[in-house]
Amino acid sequence: MATLQLEHYNIEIGPIGEAHFQWLADQQFAGIAVLTDSNTAQHCCPIVEAGLAKFNPTYIEVPAGEQHKTIETSQYIWEQLFQAGAGRNWCVLNLGGGVIGDMGGFCAGTFKRGIDFIQVPTTLLSQVDASVGGKLGIDFFGVKNSVGLFRDPRAVWADPRFFHTLSDRELRSGFAEIIKHALIADAQQWNELQSMTTLSEVDWTNWVARSVAIKQQIVAEDPMEKGLRKALNFGHTIGHAIESYFLETDTPLLHGEAIAAGMICEAWLSAEVLGLSSTELEQITSYFLTLYGHQTIPMNESETLLATMRQDKKNEDSRINFSLLPSIGAVEVNQTASPELILKSMEFYNESGR
Amino acid sequence: MATLQLEHYNIEIGPIGEAHFQWLADQQFAGIAVLTDSNTAQHCCPIVEAGLAKFNPTYIEVPAGEQHKTIETSQYIWEQLFQAGAGRNWCVLNLGGGVIGDMGGFCAGTFKRGIDFIQVPTTLLSQVDASVGGKLGIDFFGVKNSVGLFRDPRAVWADPRFFHTLSDRELRSGFAEIIKHALIADAQQWNELQSMTTLSEVDWTNWVARSVAIKQQIVAEDPMEKGLRKALNFGHTIGHAIESYFLETDTPLLHGEAIAAGMICEAWLSAEVLGLSSTELEQITSYFLTLYGHQTIPMNESETLLATMRQDKKNEDSRINFSLLPSIGAVEVNQTASPELILKSMEFYNESGR
Repeated sequence: MATLQLEHYNIEIGPIGEAHFQWLADQQFAGIAVLTDSNTAQHCCPIVEAGLAKFNPTYIEVPAGEQHKTIETSQYIWEQLFQAGAGRNWCVLNLGGGVIGDMGGFCAGTFKRGIDFIQVPTTLLSQVDASVGGKLGIDFFGVKNSVGLFRDPRAVWADPRFFHTLSDRELRSGFAEIIKHALIADAQQWNELQSMTTLSEVDWTNWVARSVAIKQQIVAEDPMEKGLRKALNFGHTIGHAIESYFLETDTPLLHGEAIAAGMICEAWLSAEVLGLSSTELEQITSYFLTLYGHQTIPMNESETLLATMRQDKKNEDSRINFSLLPSIGAVEVNQTASPELILKSMEFYNESGR
Repeated sequence: MATLQLEHYNIEIGPIGEAHFQWLADQQFAGIAVLTDSNTAQHCCPIVEAGLAKFNPTYIEVPAGEQHKTIETSQYIWEQLFQAGAGRNWCVLNLGGGVIGDMGGFCAGTFKRGIDFIQVPTTLLSQVDASVGGKLGIDFFGVKNSVGLFRDPRAVWADPRFFHTLSDRELRSGFAEIIKHALIADAQQWNELQSMTTLSEVDWTNWVARSVAIKQQIVAEDPMEKGLRKALNFGHTIGHAIESYFLETDTPLLHGEAIAAGMICEAWLSAEVLGLSSTELEQITSYFLTLYGHQTIPMNESETLLATMRQDKKNEDSRINFSLLPSIGAVEVNQTASPELILKSMEFYNESGR
């Protein structure tokens, strides 16, 4: 077990057990609702339902998948809370990946102007990415997370046993965020990662805790995402555009897979714009290709890809915003690059796979 | 002009003029959206649109009325913001009464996880009641303000010139909140009010400022409505139930009219539970009857009325919660009364009108 104490709540990393349920009892909530999707209801509930039974919780199940992270599903969740008689002293336990955490947190954060919620992230990605930061939301108008709010949970319970329900591919996808955190903030962690190319023997409690600690430190200095927090965007400007493009094809990529490709492109931009050394660029490129393989970015769709980058929430004007690496373990926000240079970075990625 | 400086923003009470627009220019927002309803678009926009013209604002108009304070109207507002190209550095100016302020604030507070907004309340009720407190929301599942959040505006501009667009009845309704603030917190203000039974000559800038100052002091000590803020609920437990009942009839009451009746009932309960003197009870009863006249509460609907009171968000368990007066100018929260006593208080009100 590892405990990360944040200003307003704790992140408990390790098996969920009696101590968790005792803490929950001590909070004396008037009622508990458990939000799941159809997958986590089947595969993750068994790990917690015996311990939760004494709270007589109301279970709310929604369909699985990003396509259901909508205002319509939110209305269903609010309605179920009303029908359960939920009041201001209730707590919602969000049991699932990023979609459940984001949407369940949004619904709890706005139900009767905000009730408490506990995040129980069940994927590696959501444990590393969503445990801190308080970003909640749903997709709207075709834009991810475009309606939402910032609000901290009462607790995060990150149990690596849930990873047994993930495919190797999903686990590897989540791992990309751990690599990103090392690249932007901790060269020592990056060196350790070099020796890890198989994920079956990883000590997850340790690695999740260390990676969350990096994110927590960055978020604490910039809770409302005005500046430094953009550091976490490394790889995401181009990565999101790649993810959006492949979403419309027959071979969609997982988030981490797209971000891995984005990090190779943006490492190349880092070399051009901030002088990242060619040794480090090569190290980064080769590690990501070993873990994630290679997809060809369709250069004939470059206008679509650039248009997606221009729409990013983090752009302040018409320029495309990046967070880039002067060296491994350091990051600079508010960098920019011309469309020509961005296209060249994608060509670099395409050639690196040959 | 009067300025109330709060922790995070200022409330400017008085005519909106060049100083307001200069301040707005100084904020360097990337864009301005102005939310109105069909009434304020016609009657209130003329007061501000010349000053706003240089910002080239996007006007968003929604239908007027509480029945449109819904998630569907919110979706329309979010969509219009997207279509205008609104980004994180935009600001929404909510020009209207309570519905526009609550719903527009909710939409701004959740658009891209929260953008800035300025409240421009156009009714007496919303200037006195909604200028402080940060309560935002919409109606859902038949329950008022049941989806929303707490978030402060960047500024409040309360211009009494907007009152010329109100009927005498609407103005008197808003005045009930000024009376309530005096009753719970300022015996001196109450004494001054005694001499005011006609509203045509009131110095509104002065009275709005003084009344908002009372609310601000209470809210500052309890921003999340955990305790003291319930003081503002005086008259509202029974008043809301009366309002809900008459909403379903051919003769609905305005909010302040229902709350005025509720305050008479709850003043009687104050005498029973906390020993409010019979002199003060009589003073309160007679002042409200002079200003608001009398409606008969249908005692054959008493079960419906009690059921509405039990549903109130502020109840912590099955008991019905009141904020009552030990004497004029003082208040005690978390008081309760039996259903029998509550019915007797309504009978007292009914008899007082004979």
